[in-house]
Amino acid sequence: MFQLIELLAVLAGATYGVLLARRHRMDFVGVFSVAFIIAFAGGTLRDLFLDRHPLFWIKHDEYAVIVFVLSLVASVLPRIPSSVERWLAVPDALGMGLFSVVGAGFAIEAGTSMFIASLLGVVTGTFGGVIGDVVCNQIPSLFRPSTPLYATCSFIGCWVFLLLQFTGLEEVVAVVAGLSVCVVLRFAALRWNVCLPAAKSGSETATEKT
Amino acid sequence: MFQLIELLAVLAGATYGVLLARRHRMDFVGVFSVAFIIAFAGGTLRDLFLDRHPLFWIKHDEYAVIVFVLSLVASVLPRIPSSVERWLAVPDALGMGLFSVVGAGFAIEAGTSMFIASLLGVVTGTFGGVIGDVVCNQIPSLFRPSTPLYATCSFIGCWVFLLLQFTGLEEVVAVVAGLSVCVVLRFAALRWNVCLPAAKSGSETATEKT
Amino acid sequence: MFQLIELLAVLAGATYGVLLARRHRMDFVGVFSVAFIIAFAGGTLRDLFLDRHPLFWIKHDEYAVIVFVLSLVASVLPRIPSSVERWLAVPDALGMGLFSVVGAGFAIEAGTSMFIASLLGVVTGTFGGVIGDVVCNQIPSLFRPSTPLYATCSFIGCWVFLLLQFTGLEEVVAVVAGLSVCVVLRFAALRWNVCLPAAKSGSETATEKT
Repeated sequence: MFQLIELLAVLAGATYGVLLARRHRMDFVGVFSVAFIIAFAGGTLRDLFLDRHPLFWIKHDEYAVIVFVLSLVASVLPRIPSSVERWLAVPDALGMGLFSVVGAGFAIEAGTSMFIASLLGVVTGTFGGVIGDVVCNQIPSLFRPSTPLYATCSFIGCWVFLLLQFTGLEEVVAVVAGLSVCVVLRFAALRWNVCLPAAKSGSETATEKT
Repeated sequence: MFQLIELLAVLAGATYGVLLARRHRMDFVGVFSVAFIIAFAGGTLRDLFLDRHPLFWIKHDEYAVIVFVLSLVASVLPRIPSSVERWLAVPDALGMGLFSVVGAGFAIEAGTSMFIASLLGVVTGTFGGVIGDVVCNQIPSLFRPSTPLYATCSFIGCWVFLLLQFTGLEEVVAVVAGLSVCVVLRFAALRWNVCLPAAKSGSETATEKT
Repeated sequence: MFQLIELLAVLAGATYGVLLARRHRMDFVGVFSVAFIIAFAGGTLRDLFLDRHPLFWIKHDEYAVIVFVLSLVASVLPRIPSSVERWLAVPDALGMGLFSVVGAGFAIEAGTSMFIASLLGVVTGTFGGVIGDVVCNQIPSLFRPSTPLYATCSFIGCWVFLLLQFTGLEEVVAVVAGLSVCVVLRFAALRWNVCLPAAKSGSETATEKT
């Protein structure tokens, strides 16, 4: 089952990456690189942190072929209809939820504590986008207070999954519940524009780190 | 002893990260992410480069809990008094010195040459801040010539530690000496604003890398 | 032979890094850091992804000493003559080609598929520059459509190497052929300013990732 989930998550991440790269008017190499980074960076960090080898995209080399073909198609298409972009939030939320649950599951399997597992779930679910933003030279939207809840949805979904699994429920139930919580929370946050309150600036006289 | 040192270093790094994130007016997720990155990125690179598993913050999962609580408290506080920020240089220099010595010590244990060990000490001591700056979308202050000596202090402190240890002195003496050199040099550099001279620009006609 | 190739690639990468850092008017610490990152980042990612330990620059610690001395010399030199910079494309293309072929060779040795091996070749050959650009806070030139072919040359050269090796030719022939293709294609792209066409922007109404 994790197999199918991971494939879906890669598809969702790559789709988002392709569209982001096109907005920055990149050529095929840029489109493929950004799609590759967004689809694989979170899971790669997870695998490196947990010392899982070979990396998931080296083991399942069809993932990279899929991202390659997707980027090729997207670079050739003259124009992506904006109706497609409006639906983009769906695979994005799905990808985040899927990667989060898989990440937390792999971490707990590797024997980490539940708190660490939930953090690794969030890293897997959200850091593809963070690194994609850094590479495109913008402050990651994840860190900006004006964006609706994102990492928070991932974090809560991971805990739902971890707690349900801990109680001895069948894994499939825990996975579906955790994933659903991620996705439903995310859509609710988008729909009603729920944000965490921003910290007030510490002090204007703050000395720059030197 | 390394245990206590590492805990102090994590505390210092997280404190700096929380204050940096607040200056960028981030919400709780941003504050936690930046604090987490600054406290753990240098040590994570060291562990990955030396193939030490599990990573130090996965092994000692109380570190992540501490950073979490610290971020929560900092996000709730209405305003951080500027007197706190003025004292920030103390934990910052301590954190840099502590991580540097621990990093160099772990590297030499893993059998690297002394030069590589000193470099890994500098990476451990300073790269949390570098990656934090990159994530906040500014050129790392470490690389700007207008900042007082920072990596240089770490580098010299690592060599003091490595050479004393090489002579067969007790480890605790070498650690304290290396740490003191890092911290004292850093404060001296801040006090008298000591900078390395900037390289003059190579040539205005330099062709962009393409 | 790989030994000599890697040494040449490190030299080329470090030279490019030193010149880039000087253009940003960095001091010695900045120059060394950027040179170090550009020379070692691609190969470090390759080694981490393939779980090769110790990392190539920890094993061959003379590489780091070379980069250190080169940075020291470059920081002391009053001015780098622009004629040197005009010749910079030569070691840059050589470094890219050398790292690409070595990266693809190590990957195929580690048992990856050929497609993954070609991607790891491109990562090894080009990501030093990408990470260097990110650290200097600019969108990596690799991703900008206005730059002549770069990753594409690396990709094609890797495939030439992989296919020739697959046919059972002597390794040295495959290496030289792959390297030559990288370098010749790169010079041709620079000479006639060959670029991939940019993707047209998807749609102006694209909703920001939140």
